[in-house]
Amino acid sequence: MQNFQFYVPTKVIFGQGTVDQVGQLVAEQGCKKVLVHFGGRSAKASGLLDRVCASLQSAGVPYVTLGGVKPNPRLALVYEGLELCRKEGVDFLLAVGGGSVIDSAKAIAFGLANPDLDVWDLYDQRAAATACAPVGCVLTIAAAGSETSNSSVITKETPDGDLKRAYGSDLCRPRFAIMDPTLTYTLPDYQTACGCTDIMMHTMERFFAYEKDNDVTDNIAIGILRAVKKNALILVNDPKNYNARAQIMWAGSLSHNSLTGCGIVGRGDWATHQLEHELGGMFDVAHGAGLAAMWGSWARYVCDAQPARFAQFAREVMEVPATGDDMIDALAGIAAFENLMHELHMPTNLPELGVTATEQQIETLAYRCTYEHRRKIGYVKVLDESDIANIYRMANQVPDPLFT
Amino acid sequence: MQNFQFYVPTKVIFGQGTVDQVGQLVAEQGCKKVLVHFGGRSAKASGLLDRVCASLQSAGVPYVTLGGVKPNPRLALVYEGLELCRKEGVDFLLAVGGGSVIDSAKAIAFGLANPDLDVWDLYDQRAAATACAPVGCVLTIAAAGSETSNSSVITKETPDGDLKRAYGSDLCRPRFAIMDPTLTYTLPDYQTACGCTDIMMHTMERFFAYEKDNDVTDNIAIGILRAVKKNALILVNDPKNYNARAQIMWAGSLSHNSLTGCGIVGRGDWATHQLEHELGGMFDVAHGAGLAAMWGSWARYVCDAQPARFAQFAREVMEVPATGDDMIDALAGIAAFENLMHELHMPTNLPELGVTATEQQIETLAYRCTYEHRRKIGYVKVLDESDIANIYRMANQVPDPLFT
Repeated sequence: MQNFQFYVPTKVIFGQGTVDQVGQLVAEQGCKKVLVHFGGRSAKASGLLDRVCASLQSAGVPYVTLGGVKPNPRLALVYEGLELCRKEGVDFLLAVGGGSVIDSAKAIAFGLANPDLDVWDLYDQRAAATACAPVGCVLTIAAAGSETSNSSVITKETPDGDLKRAYGSDLCRPRFAIMDPTLTYTLPDYQTACGCTDIMMHTMERFFAYEKDNDVTDNIAIGILRAVKKNALILVNDPKNYNARAQIMWAGSLSHNSLTGCGIVGRGDWATHQLEHELGGMFDVAHGAGLAAMWGSWARYVCDAQPARFAQFAREVMEVPATGDDMIDALAGIAAFENLMHELHMPTNLPELGVTATEQQIETLAYRCTYEHRRKIGYVKVLDESDIANIYRMANQVPDPLFT
Repeated sequence: MQNFQFYVPTKVIFGQGTVDQVGQLVAEQGCKKVLVHFGGRSAKASGLLDRVCASLQSAGVPYVTLGGVKPNPRLALVYEGLELCRKEGVDFLLAVGGGSVIDSAKAIAFGLANPDLDVWDLYDQRAAATACAPVGCVLTIAAAGSETSNSSVITKETPDGDLKRAYGSDLCRPRFAIMDPTLTYTLPDYQTACGCTDIMMHTMERFFAYEKDNDVTDNIAIGILRAVKKNALILVNDPKNYNARAQIMWAGSLSHNSLTGCGIVGRGDWATHQLEHELGGMFDVAHGAGLAAMWGSWARYVCDAQPARFAQFAREVMEVPATGDDMIDALAGIAAFENLMHELHMPTNLPELGVTATEQQIETLAYRCTYEHRRKIGYVKVLDESDIANIYRMANQVPDPLFT
C-alpha cells in the first residue's frame, strides 16, 4: 500500500427536499456576494433556480446570476464570469447544475483567487494555483463527481478545434454539496446513462492502477462498481426510481472524491479519460459516451500487461464465470462491460458514438493527447503517441462480431 | 435510502514516515500554543513523543505536554487538562496515541470552547456543545476511529463503579490525522485483536440497522468487513506485516467516520456498544474484548427480527454457505463470527473475558444502560431494561458447545 493523503472537507447534504437549505449553507460561509452559476433552460424551467434564489434571499445573501454553461464548459464563459465577479465584488461561487457548471465555477474561483495568473495556464499545466475562492453546489446530474472532487475540466475553443484540459487541486473542493436525487428525475435517458458510465470509469481508472494487498480500497471500488451497474440497469426501465437515483448520485461522489484511489500507485491510469478529452475537444461528444466508446479499445490494448487484474474485474464486477485462464477471463470481462454499455444504450466504439475520424484527425488527436509531446499517458501500459493513435484506430472500427 | 449529512473534514496523512510532518500541520492551523496529550510509557519509550516534540519545535510551535491517559479515559484527567490549557493559553489539542488519548483531547477541546458548561454534562446527555477547540492527532492504535470520527467516550469514576459515556458532534472531528501503520507494530497482540474487533463492530452496528436498496453503503460495509477479517488473521501470525497493518488502520477510520452509515435509518443499532460501555465502566475491561464478549449474545437475542440481514452477513462477510433458510444461515453466521473471534484470541462471553457478574451486578448494568430509565437501546430490536438484563445473563454463561 502506498502512502496517500485524503482530504474531502465538503459537507454533503443528501436527500430529497434538501435544496431549500442552500441559503443557510451559503450564509454560514460568511461571504459578501454570491455568483449563482448555472447551465441552460432546465434549471430555469424546472423552477430550481427560483427556489435557490428564494432561499438565498430569505437568508439575506446578495447574489448575481450567470447562466449559459454548456457541456464541455468553455473558457470564454469562465473569463466572462471572472469579469462579472470582479465588477460585482463576488466572493462565493454557487454552482447549480452538473459537472460542467461546477467545473466552470471552480475555474472562475481559481481565477478570482489568483489574479496574476491566466486561469487557462492552470489547465494547460503551465502554472499551479496557490488559492481558490470558495465554491458550493446544488447538484442536478450524477456523473462527474465534481461536487466533492478536487478536479475540474475546461474546454478552450481554438481555430484548430477545441482543447479540453483538466486541473486538480484540493483547494477547489466545494465547501458544501446539496445532493437531491429527485433533481435528476427529468434527465434524458442518454444523459443518465452517460453519467453512470462516467461514474464507473472514475473508479475503474483507479482500480486498474493495481496495487498489491490493498484490500480496503479494492473492496470499496468493487462494491461501488457493482452498485452502479445494478442501479444503472434499474434506471433504464424505471428512471424515477428514487433509491436507484440516490445510489447512483452517492456513488458519483464516492467514485471521484479520491476514496477509490487510496493507497494505489500514483493517481490512477486515466488513459481512457485522456483519450476521451481529445475526442470531446475535437467532436464535442458527451463525456460519458466518449468514455464508453474508447474504453474497450484501451482495455484490449493494455490488458496483457495486467491480465490478473482484468480477470478480477471480470469475475468480481462483471460476474463472468472464472475459466482458470486470466487472459480469457480478462477478455470476457471487457466484452461483458461492452454488453453492459449496450444495455445502457451507450456506444462501444467511435462509429456507434456517431464519429468517424479520418487518419489525419487520429494523428491530431494522438498528438494533442501527448500535450504536444510533453507527456505520455496511462499506467497499466505507458502509452506514447503511436500507442494512442493505435487505440483511436481500434475504436474507429466497428468490431467484427465474430471476434468479440 | 434515508436522507443524510456526511461531513468528514479531517485531512488524513497516511503512511510510513509521515510523523515528522506534524509540526508543519500544526503550524498551518495558526494556533498560539499546543497541548501534546498522550498516554503512558510507550509513547515515550518508543521515541515517538520526542519526534513529535522535535517536529513542533522546528516548526516554531510552542507546546506543553500532558500524559497519563488510560484506556477508558477518565474525566478527572480531562478536568486536569482543561485547567492546564487555561493556565497556559493552549488553543490546539494534539493527541499522540489511540482512541482513548484522542477522546480525552476531544473532551478537553469541548471544555475549552464551552467554558460555561461542565463538560461531563455533554457525555451524560444533559447539554449540547456549540463549539469545540481544534484537535489534531498522531494515531498509534487502529481501533476506535476517533481520528476522523465525530465521537468520543469518557469514563467518570464514581463510588458505585464507573460511568462510561459517549458524546457525538461534527464539531470535534480532528483537523488532521497522521496515520503511520508502523507505529502499531509494537502493540501487544491482544490489543491489536481488540482493535480489529472494535473496527468490525463500528461497521456492524450500522450494517444491522438495515435499510432496503442501499447498495453503495451495504457494499462498502461488506467490503471493509471482509478486508478487516482477512488482515486481522494475517496479523495473528505476522504482526509486522506492513500492508495488513495499513489495511486495518485505514479500515479503522472508514468504519467510524460515518461512511458505512450513509443512508441508513437513524445512526445504527449500537446496542452492543452500549452493553459494553456499562461493562467497561463496571469492570474496566478492554473495549474491543468487551464488544467481542457481548456481540454473540446480542445477535442471538435479536436476529429473529432481521433473519435475512443476519443471513446476508453470514454469506457475504463470514462466507458461510447458504442453506436457503435465513434463520439457519443467520445462526451459522453468528457462530462463524465467534469462531473468528476465537482465532483472534478474543472472548465470546463474559467468563472468557475474565468477568463473572452476579445477578445484582447484571441488574445494575441493565439499569445504568438505560441511563436510569431515560432511554431504551438498539434498533434491530428496541431493548428495555429487562431485555438488556437477559442479554447480560446470556453472555454471563459459557455456551454449551453442543448447542452452538
